[in-house]
Amino acid sequence: DFLNALHEVGPAFGASMDDLERRRLNGIIDCGERHKRIQERALLLVEQIKDNQSPLVTYLLEGPSGSGKTAMAATIGIESDFPYVKIISAESMIGLGEASKCAQIVKVFEDAYKSQLSFIILDDIERLLEYVPVGPRFSNLILQTLLLFLKRLPPKGKSLMVIGTTSVMDFLETVGIFGAFSISDHVPNLDREDVKKVKGISVSRFGVLKQLDVFCENELDYAVEEVNEISIKKLYMLVEMAAVGPKGKSAKAIQSGQEKIDLNFFSSI
Amino acid sequence: DFLNALHEVGPAFGASMDDLERRRLNGIIDCGERHKRIQERALLLVEQIKDNQSPLVTYLLEGPSGSGKTAMAATIGIESDFPYVKIISAESMIGLGEASKCAQIVKVFEDAYKSQLSFIILDDIERLLEYVPVGPRFSNLILQTLLLFLKRLPPKGKSLMVIGTTSVMDFLETVGIFGAFSISDHVPNLDREDVKKVKGISVSRFGVLKQLDVFCENELDYAVEEVNEISIKKLYMLVEMAAVGPKGKSAKAIQSGQEKIDLNFFSSI
Amino acid sequence: DFLNALHEVGPAFGASMDDLERRRLNGIIDCGERHKRIQERALLLVEQIKDNQSPLVTYLLEGPSGSGKTAMAATIGIESDFPYVKIISAESMIGLGEASKCAQIVKVFEDAYKSQLSFIILDDIERLLEYVPVGPRFSNLILQTLLLFLKRLPPKGKSLMVIGTTSVMDFLETVGIFGAFSISDHVPNLDREDVKKVKGISVSRFGVLKQLDVFCENELDYAVEEVNEISIKKLYMLVEMAAVGPKGKSAKAIQSGQEKIDLNFFSSI
Amino acid sequence: DFLNALHEVGPAFGASMDDLERRRLNGIIDCGERHKRIQERALLLVEQIKDNQSPLVTYLLEGPSGSGKTAMAATIGIESDFPYVKIISAESMIGLGEASKCAQIVKVFEDAYKSQLSFIILDDIERLLEYVPVGPRFSNLILQTLLLFLKRLPPKGKSLMVIGTTSVMDFLETVGIFGAFSISDHVPNLDREDVKKVKGISVSRFGVLKQLDVFCENELDYAVEEVNEISIKKLYMLVEMAAVGPKGKSAKAIQSGQEKIDLNFFSSI
Amino acid sequence: DFLNALHEVGPAFGASMDDLERRRLNGIIDCGERHKRIQERALLLVEQIKDNQSPLVTYLLEGPSGSGKTAMAATIGIESDFPYVKIISAESMIGLGEASKCAQIVKVFEDAYKSQLSFIILDDIERLLEYVPVGPRFSNLILQTLLLFLKRLPPKGKSLMVIGTTSVMDFLETVGIFGAFSISDHVPNLDREDVKKVKGISVSRFGVLKQLDVFCENELDYAVEEVNEISIKKLYMLVEMAAVGPKGKSAKAIQSGQEKIDLNFFSSI
Amino acid sequence: DFLNALHEVGPAFGASMDDLERRRLNGIIDCGERHKRIQERALLLVEQIKDNQSPLVTYLLEGPSGSGKTAMAATIGIESDFPYVKIISAESMIGLGEASKCAQIVKVFEDAYKSQLSFIILDDIERLLEYVPVGPRFSNLILQTLLLFLKRLPPKGKSLMVIGTTSVMDFLETVGIFGAFSISDHVPNLDREDVKKVKGISVSRFGVLKQLDVFCENELDYAVEEVNEISIKKLYMLVEMAAVGPKGKSAKAIQSGQEKIDLNFFSSI
Ligand SMILES: Nc1ncnc2c1ncn2[C@@H]1O[C@H](COP(=O)(O)OP(=O)(O)OP(=O)(O)O)[C@@H](O)[C@H]1O
Ligand SMILES: Nc1ncnc2c1ncn2[C@@H]1O[C@H](COP(=O)(O)OP(=O)(O)OP(=O)(O)O)[C@@H](O)[C@H]1O
Ligand SMILES: Nc1ncnc2c1ncn2[C@@H]1O[C@H](COP(=O)(O)OP(=O)(O)OP(=O)(O)O)[C@@H](O)[C@H]1O
Ligand SMILES: Nc1ncnc2c1ncn2[C@@H]1O[C@H](COP(=O)(O)OP(=O)(O)OP(=O)(O)O)[C@@H](O)[C@H]1O
Ligand SMILES: Nc1ncnc2c1ncn2[C@@H]1O[C@H](COP(=O)(O)OP(=O)(O)OP(=O)(O)O)[C@@H](O)[C@H]1O
Ligand SMILES: Nc1ncnc2c1ncn2[C@@H]1O[C@H](COP(=O)(O)OP(=O)(O)OP(=O)(O)O)[C@@H](O)[C@H]1O
Ligand SMILES: [Mg+2]
Ligand SMILES: [Mg+2]
Ligand SMILES: [Mg+2]
Ligand SMILES: [Mg+2]
Ligand SMILES: [Mg+2]
Ligand SMILES: [Mg+2]
Repeated sequence: DFLNALHEVGPAFGASMDDLERRRLNGIIDCGERHKRIQERALLLVEQIKDNQSPLVTYLLEGPSGSGKTAMAATIGIESDFPYVKIISAESMIGLGEASKCAQIVKVFEDAYKSQLSFIILDDIERLLEYVPVGPRFSNLILQTLLLFLKRLPPKGKSLMVIGTTSVMDFLETVGIFGAFSISDHVPNLDREDVKKVKGISVSRFGVLKQLDVFCENELDYAVEEVNEISIKKLYMLVEMAAVGPKGKSAKAIQSGQEKIDLNFFSSI
Repeated sequence: DFLNALHEVGPAFGASMDDLERRRLNGIIDCGERHKRIQERALLLVEQIKDNQSPLVTYLLEGPSGSGKTAMAATIGIESDFPYVKIISAESMIGLGEASKCAQIVKVFEDAYKSQLSFIILDDIERLLEYVPVGPRFSNLILQTLLLFLKRLPPKGKSLMVIGTTSVMDFLETVGIFGAFSISDHVPNLDREDVKKVKGISVSRFGVLKQLDVFCENELDYAVEEVNEISIKKLYMLVEMAAVGPKGKSAKAIQSGQEKIDLNFFSSI
Repeated sequence: DFLNALHEVGPAFGASMDDLERRRLNGIIDCGERHKRIQERALLLVEQIKDNQSPLVTYLLEGPSGSGKTAMAATIGIESDFPYVKIISAESMIGLGEASKCAQIVKVFEDAYKSQLSFIILDDIERLLEYVPVGPRFSNLILQTLLLFLKRLPPKGKSLMVIGTTSVMDFLETVGIFGAFSISDHVPNLDREDVKKVKGISVSRFGVLKQLDVFCENELDYAVEEVNEISIKKLYMLVEMAAVGPKGKSAKAIQSGQEKIDLNFFSSI
Repeated sequence: DFLNALHEVGPAFGASMDDLERRRLNGIIDCGERHKRIQERALLLVEQIKDNQSPLVTYLLEGPSGSGKTAMAATIGIESDFPYVKIISAESMIGLGEASKCAQIVKVFEDAYKSQLSFIILDDIERLLEYVPVGPRFSNLILQTLLLFLKRLPPKGKSLMVIGTTSVMDFLETVGIFGAFSISDHVPNLDREDVKKVKGISVSRFGVLKQLDVFCENELDYAVEEVNEISIKKLYMLVEMAAVGPKGKSAKAIQSGQEKIDLNFFSSI
Repeated sequence: DFLNALHEVGPAFGASMDDLERRRLNGIIDCGERHKRIQERALLLVEQIKDNQSPLVTYLLEGPSGSGKTAMAATIGIESDFPYVKIISAESMIGLGEASKCAQIVKVFEDAYKSQLSFIILDDIERLLEYVPVGPRFSNLILQTLLLFLKRLPPKGKSLMVIGTTSVMDFLETVGIFGAFSISDHVPNLDREDVKKVKGISVSRFGVLKQLDVFCENELDYAVEEVNEISIKKLYMLVEMAAVGPKGKSAKAIQSGQEKIDLNFFSSI
Repeated sequence: DFLNALHEVGPAFGASMDDLERRRLNGIIDCGERHKRIQERALLLVEQIKDNQSPLVTYLLEGPSGSGKTAMAATIGIESDFPYVKIISAESMIGLGEASKCAQIVKVFEDAYKSQLSFIILDDIERLLEYVPVGPRFSNLILQTLLLFLKRLPPKGKSLMVIGTTSVMDFLETVGIFGAFSISDHVPNLDREDVKKVKGISVSRFGVLKQLDVFCENELDYAVEEVNEISIKKLYMLVEMAAVGPKGKSAKAIQSGQEKIDLNFFSSI
């Protein structure tokens, strides 16, 4: 089954640069000290590979949903400047069986072993594992495959960096994936201080770039008090919704619209 | 298996407008403030999509059985005026295996990605998942597929709105489907106040439209005291049964017939 | 698998009138007030369908084994005078796999949707589900199919009445089958008062009709004291066994023979 | 699968008279009052069938291993004088899969339905179900098949008696097989009084009939005190072993040999 | 599946005399009273078969790993002098599926039924069952097969002795294998007294027979104090290791070498 | 399935010397007394085989991840000078099914049985078993195969040494693999004393051999205080990372760089 699947894998599986760019659709903005320190460390690991000090470095980014793990991993991949950078993501394997997914994963690693310097992102490992907390259920075939690749040294003279992302750290620890990574970091949600600094998000994705100053200083302070922890992803959504509110009203109205929305309308978000 | 299934999916799977209309067979009547506010919010989300603020908005309607979730979702779909509106419902996939159902779902989403503005209803998600609380059992293949589609961004320039409905919120939360939706709302049963306002339901479905005033003012008050919470769907059933009672008797008789029925005959409903 | 099975289903699956008659082999005798009231309600529901008030009425008869659920459902089906009356029963699908059984069920419903007025009996739902309390185990494929058909509206202009029977109410409630029926009733065992009225059962099935008066007045009173609850089916068995006792003895001997049998011989029944 | 299996079943499955005889290899000796009463009742049930009082009588013999259930059922089958008497036993289906076993069972019942009077022995139902208490595990396919056949009426004019045997009553009760039988009896082990009466077992199976008087009166009394409960099958084994002891010694030596064996040698039996 | 497997079984499956000899590679030495008594009883059972007293005797040897069960069973098989002696062992079925293993077992028994006197060893029943305590998991197909063969009488005029071995008595009891054997015995580890008597083990397996007197009297006494319970198999290993120590040293050196090894080196054995 | 798999196994499966060398990529340095004693014992066992004292010696190395078990086993294999030395490792069977893996294992053992002296390494037994603690799940097919091979004697005149490695001792004990090995040893992490002695690790893997003295005496003392237990593998990683730090700085800078890194940067390792 697996062997058939392996045979059928097309030659160019794995993500191109474009694919990586799509993972940080909203760009990378300043998210506070904690985010910055992780990025620094990641780049140091990239150096370690380039310096030929290690044939294999495996690095796990874990943290709550939406905290920016995938975007960060994509950024590091892009900035690494390695000749081979691929992302393994369940999204591109929807509906495939275990054996086929496994074959795809094998293909990406085998291809990586052919490049001097390679970079692989294992995005949302729980999704790759088809994990569901009820049971729990997951694909042991894929799990075993990942466990092995995370420890397997590339052939002589080749080097590989692997970055994984997950939001179910506990589970990864239980099944031994966490232990199989050599280093790991926690990517946190934004706290009040971080949020305050984020004001001035540009909603830039849609054709025209609109530099919105969606929160007025006071309201922001007030809103921030309400928020204890929020992911950067949710904050973007809030801004997008706020942007709908005005509809031909003045900039002033935007802010008042935002206030109403933030505190009443989106309370369930 | 899945690939075969995918290949066999006919070109026009997914519901037409007619199909949507069938989901609100009894029309949409005034069900009180709480229902109204949900509909408003849903339409705001539709605007957000149209304004190009978000490429993907996912919205979950949860609440007790018969509270009107499906009818409401169909209504929003119809009123959205999007070029592509489809409903994914277990009803149209009776007896199919996991892989085939999965293929159907993939087809609807892939088709949606081709339209500028798309609208997909995931109706009765627990049925799509073949969920049963004993075990619990469910299709992990379909679950993983939904989890991925709920987070996957449409291609550049395309926008998608997804509305899901469910009456087993707890389960959806456990398996992560709830968390995968960006927003959610609770669709409640009718309480006493709501029921009082509903008097004057028209039993309009059967050939001739009969505008029945099935409860007389006093009886209604009395009956309403008995009822603590009732779904709009059950209320319709009560009215239908009441309508059988008379059989050529006077309108007056209807009401007395109703009273007897309501309090004695249908006590087990 | 299911599709193959569906294709192989013969054209005339489902029970004919004869089949229904076999379900009330011992006829229908007076079993007390409680039985009577259920039958009345059922016939009212039949009226509701005929009056075009509802396109779909689903009615569940639950109660202990042998209490008369199947016979009652068959009787209502026969008396409904609907053009399409079928019984779905595990008995006629012995040894078939899930997919085949499912296909049979689909066939009966699809056929029903073609008739103006249809009547379907889902007999012994726990057997259809291949239910066993250990585990518990059951066919989720069949369960999901039933859940969907119990809620699916027939096409415009067609009406359908479904009567289900079961003796494991708890399980049906847990898996949501109970909730999927719009109405339900409990079919009880006979209590002492009911039994007293049953005297004079005719053991009529065997070639010659023998009108036996198997209990003499006093003995009956005595025997009835012993019995707390008994199903109508068991009562028939008692009478059959009593009828063996005499063997060419006088009517007097029957009764004495019966007494001995009832209190000693059948104590373990 | 099942359908294939059904097709492959040879025409003459089921046991012949010879087969039944093998089930009571050691003959039937007097085992005390309790055994006798069961046999009487069984024959009364046979009469009930013959008298055309019942189309279907199902009778379960349950009790500890070796207590004589199978031998008793075989005896009743032989003595019934019915034209069709078959035994369904796991022994003749070793190594077959569920579907094949199920097909065999179906075949025996279908054949029985063709005879005026039929008699089927379901021997060692737990073995037919491939039951093992760990889990517990068992074949639900076979269980469902038995549940249905135990309730299914033979065609008009045909009558069927079914006798089942089991030594795991609890399990049969849990899964509903016990409830599906109309009557049941407990076949007990021998107690001290029963054993005393058994003295004088003839070890008759082996070519020459040897009428051994293996216990002398005193020793028996003594030995019997030791034994609290023993199955008739174990008692036979004891006698067989005792018969080895002598080897050309006097009858006196037999007894002394027996005594040594009984109390020391076989303590672990 | 099973039927295919059955068909493919070669004609000569089952162990030859050679095979049996390999099971007692280290010969049979005096292991104390308890071992002796078991062997006596086993030979008495062999007599019982030969004397035609029983068509089927089943005997279970249970005890800790390495206590000598297999060697003992092989010895009895060899000494029985029966024309058909076979060993059924998982070792000769490595990697086969359930059905194939089952077919092999069936073949050995069917062949045995053709011989006047047959002897079958079911070695390491837990391995035959693919037992693992986690779960627990085991092959129910093989279990059911063994349960049936342990009770099935050989054809008229044929006799069969079965000896089983196991070191997981508890499990065999739970699943009913223990109950299916007519007799059983516990094969113990050696205690201090037994070990003392074993001095003078000949390490005879390797080409030249070396009669080593590996423990000097005093050291043995000392060592034996340390050992509470040891299997005969472990004792052999100790001797083998001790034999490595010397390497051209004097017999004296052997013992001092042994002492060092026994108490320090092999403490973890 | 297995038989097919067995047939497809290529002729030269199993690791060559090169393969073994790759397992101790960082060489073998002095890791303290405890490591040394294990190696001594292992070589003694090798002698035992060569001396023809035992046809089969099985030795388990267990201990925390990275403690050097695989490197140690490879070293012993290389130094044994046996004509047949193979490593069975999950790494070379990624993505294969149970049956295929099983076939590979069988092949290696069968080949080993053909050589006078053979050496097999079962590396990371938990990975071979596809073990995951959730459930737990594992391949029972492979487990049973290993259990049998660990006890099966090679053919007459052949000898085999098996070394297994594992970091989940508890599990191996539960499923009986531990008991199936004749001897076992614990390979510990380095404690403070061990670490102190390790200073002067040569980072020799990368083209040019750099003899780094990465810790200055004082810092080492300080760092060692922080570390309670560390695996030799982690220590190597620390050194590699430290080696990245300098980048054209003086040796002095290396150490200060190391200090910063050790205590702050790698705290999460
Ligand atoms: N400094 C930043 N780091 C990460 N993401 C950022 C940053 N600034 C902005 N973003 C934006 O925030 C979003 C983070 O979402 P992302 O998908 O990376 O989160 P995630 O942690 O992977 O979530 P999930 O657990 O659901 O996979 C992206 O759209 C990204 O463009
Ligand atoms: N304001 C309203 N909102 C929703 N439904 C309404 C409203 N007014 C009338 N209805 C009618 O009430 C019925 C609601 O049933 P619907 O199937 O939508 O409930 P549901 O919550 O989806 O139930 P289920 O959980 O069983 O799927 C429909 O027939 C619809 O026509
Ligand atoms: N008033 C009555 N209602 C129902 N059954 C009656 C009545 N009078 C007589 N009977 C007879 O009683 C028997 C009832 O058995 P039936 O099979 O219907 O019970 P059941 O509740 O379906 O049992 P089970 O739970 O085992 O399926 C039938 O033989 C029927 O002919
Ligand atoms: N009165 C008797 N009733 C039953 N069996 C008797 C009687 N007298 C002697 N026997 C002998 O006793 C033995 C009873 O064994 P049998 O196999 O019937 O027991 P069982 O209860 O079916 O055991 P199991 O539970 O193991 O199937 C038979 O060999 C039978 O010939
Ligand atoms: N008196 C004896 N009884 C049994 N075995 C003996 C005796 N004397 C010496 N031996 C030797 O001891 C060893 C016993 O090992 P054996 O394989 O029979 O143990 P086992 O109980 O079957 O172990 P396992 O539970 O692992 O299968 C054999 O090598 C055998 O030659
Ligand atoms: N004395 C030593 N013993 C073992 N390994 C050593 C020694 N000295 C240096 N090493 C190096 O340490 C590393 C030990 O890693 P190894 O893979 O053997 O650990 P492991 O215990 O097998 O880990 P895992 O449990 O993850 O399989 C190897 O790179 C090896 O070259
Ligand atoms: Mg992500
Ligand atoms: Mg709905
Ligand atoms: Mg019924
Ligand atoms: Mg029996
Ligand atoms: Mg053994
Ligand atoms: Mg290792």
